[in-house]
Amino acid sequence: MGGDHGPSILVPGVARAAETTPDLRFLLHGDQTELEAAAAKCKPLQGRCEIRHTERVIGMDEKAAQAMRRGKGTSMWNAIETVKSGEAAAAVSAGNTGALMAISKLQLRTVGEVRPPLVVDWPGEAGVTTVLDVGANVDCDAKRLLEYAIMGEAYHRAVHGVARPTIGILNVGAEDQKGHEDVREAHRLLRENDLGLDYRGFVEGSDFTKGVVNVIVTDGFTGNVALKTAEGTARFILAELRAALTSSLMSKAGALLASGPLKTLRDKLSPDPAAPLLGLNGLVVKSHGSATSKDFAGAVRLAANLARSDFAAEIDRNMKRLTAAVAADEAAPAAEGVSE
Amino acid sequence: MGGDHGPSILVPGVARAAETTPDLRFLLHGDQTELEAAAAKCKPLQGRCEIRHTERVIGMDEKAAQAMRRGKGTSMWNAIETVKSGEAAAAVSAGNTGALMAISKLQLRTVGEVRPPLVVDWPGEAGVTTVLDVGANVDCDAKRLLEYAIMGEAYHRAVHGVARPTIGILNVGAEDQKGHEDVREAHRLLRENDLGLDYRGFVEGSDFTKGVVNVIVTDGFTGNVALKTAEGTARFILAELRAALTSSLMSKAGALLASGPLKTLRDKLSPDPAAPLLGLNGLVVKSHGSATSKDFAGAVRLAANLARSDFAAEIDRNMKRLTAAVAADEAAPAAEGVSE
Repeated sequence: MGGDHGPSILVPGVARAAETTPDLRFLLHGDQTELEAAAAKCKPLQGRCEIRHTERVIGMDEKAAQAMRRGKGTSMWNAIETVKSGEAAAAVSAGNTGALMAISKLQLRTVGEVRPPLVVDWPGEAGVTTVLDVGANVDCDAKRLLEYAIMGEAYHRAVHGVARPTIGILNVGAEDQKGHEDVREAHRLLRENDLGLDYRGFVEGSDFTKGVVNVIVTDGFTGNVALKTAEGTARFILAELRAALTSSLMSKAGALLASGPLKTLRDKLSPDPAAPLLGLNGLVVKSHGSATSKDFAGAVRLAANLARSDFAAEIDRNMKRLTAAVAADEAAPAAEGVSE
Repeated sequence: MGGDHGPSILVPGVARAAETTPDLRFLLHGDQTELEAAAAKCKPLQGRCEIRHTERVIGMDEKAAQAMRRGKGTSMWNAIETVKSGEAAAAVSAGNTGALMAISKLQLRTVGEVRPPLVVDWPGEAGVTTVLDVGANVDCDAKRLLEYAIMGEAYHRAVHGVARPTIGILNVGAEDQKGHEDVREAHRLLRENDLGLDYRGFVEGSDFTKGVVNVIVTDGFTGNVALKTAEGTARFILAELRAALTSSLMSKAGALLASGPLKTLRDKLSPDPAAPLLGLNGLVVKSHGSATSKDFAGAVRLAANLARSDFAAEIDRNMKRLTAAVAADEAAPAAEGVSE
């Protein structure tokens, strides 16, 4: 029921995913009449979806705290409940992000003490780089950065099919002594312990688009600023480009001749329409509120890929390694030259 | 003597600045023969420059610590010494940045306990936004952020002629409770005290190019990542654009017709060729090592503008306000609802 356009856009999105992934089945939560009408128009959904009626929905502008209090029985709540009960392998929503995170945490609980990060797939020269956290937790100590590394690695493998994703920690330079205490400590722990990860060292802001590693780990403050800076820069350049290309008759003609390639470029730079909520005991995928049917189909496929992968088991195994490594590290006397 | 090309490029740069700013006079430090030969070719310098001979120079790759130890008597050292003695109003160098910062701090000393930030003028929709710190100090508490605000404001007024520059603190959202403790504390101190600044509140990564404020303040970790992210994004987009525009004969013809505007765009995005070292008792301007004569002329003009302005006195006055405000704040009982 969520998103800017509701079932009239989202149900055809589910149908697109159904078409390309024949063994999926769906539970649609929300207003029966509306959902039935939308589903009736979609041939791939015939016999493969079941509607779970509720009249109650979470508003797009509702505060997370309020959504938690009065959420029970809403379409969002019911969808997540079917993940908790094991009836559904994953929940997909284009609704209120804060409410989705809050209700998911409440019902599914987080893995250990993990604070779920926000993750994005960043477009660049060598395909996408998975970046986390881009805004959920502004304060991140070394242990939290390592949890992000574990979750990001498993996510990148499940979604992009890279057998052994490489990992970097975002810093202001490549040398060991660069940066603040938290990144240096995370760097040291990754170097000194086998957490089952292919860690490559520190990376810089210029490496987001270079594709030097598959996964870049950072705190939610820096990650959020970096993401918004990149979006702002891209918007500025494309606006300047448009202005430059319409500044004279000659260049207008040029722009017309080059319009195909310019559209391809714009598409390449547009943000990823879906991302999972990581760190929960259960799969929940958030699709953009402004998702088109095509975007929402991508979110459904992402959920399916994650559900089929070993994602959860891999995270669980590496989290145990991390817990053991941190405990051993705290028990050991500080290595010479490490403490300041 | 510094920079990638030495006097053959830098001296003509000084001459360009001399031409447009008739009342400037120059002390050129370095190899007499080389400097005389370069200056002889530049008519605007006749009778307006004096050469101070030394054979010793700081290498472009020399470590700052080494440069400090053996720096005495080098061209860089001597130039800064004339600022210290009051003979010169400012020093301009295209040499080794780390060495320039170290020798400047050693000779000129910092204002109070200020740790000098790196500053850039960020191009955007509404002219440039001054951003600091972009990499000098990774750990910045609230007081340091406020020192940056004071220095950035005075710098922006002196260089860009804005009578009362507006200021924002970089954060992950605009609301008071967003972000980590240091930004919230700086925000509160600016709201509750009159530091002589036009503070507008929190800004986000997308605001660098939007020009919502004249000065954006952040810690050296986040600022460095943001700057490199923007540079990486711009490079990626321009490379993709080039590829897109040469992908077919049609678009090649289009690119040719639009080549003038595209060059203008590239120039607009290229980084500022000069920046002052802020927070010192004396003016030092750093020009890019790869500076052209035109770039170096810009660095000389920047130094002249700063020297003529009330820059130093304004910073001094506002720093005193800050010291008083912080002392009063620490003496006062914490306001209700502020402490966590």
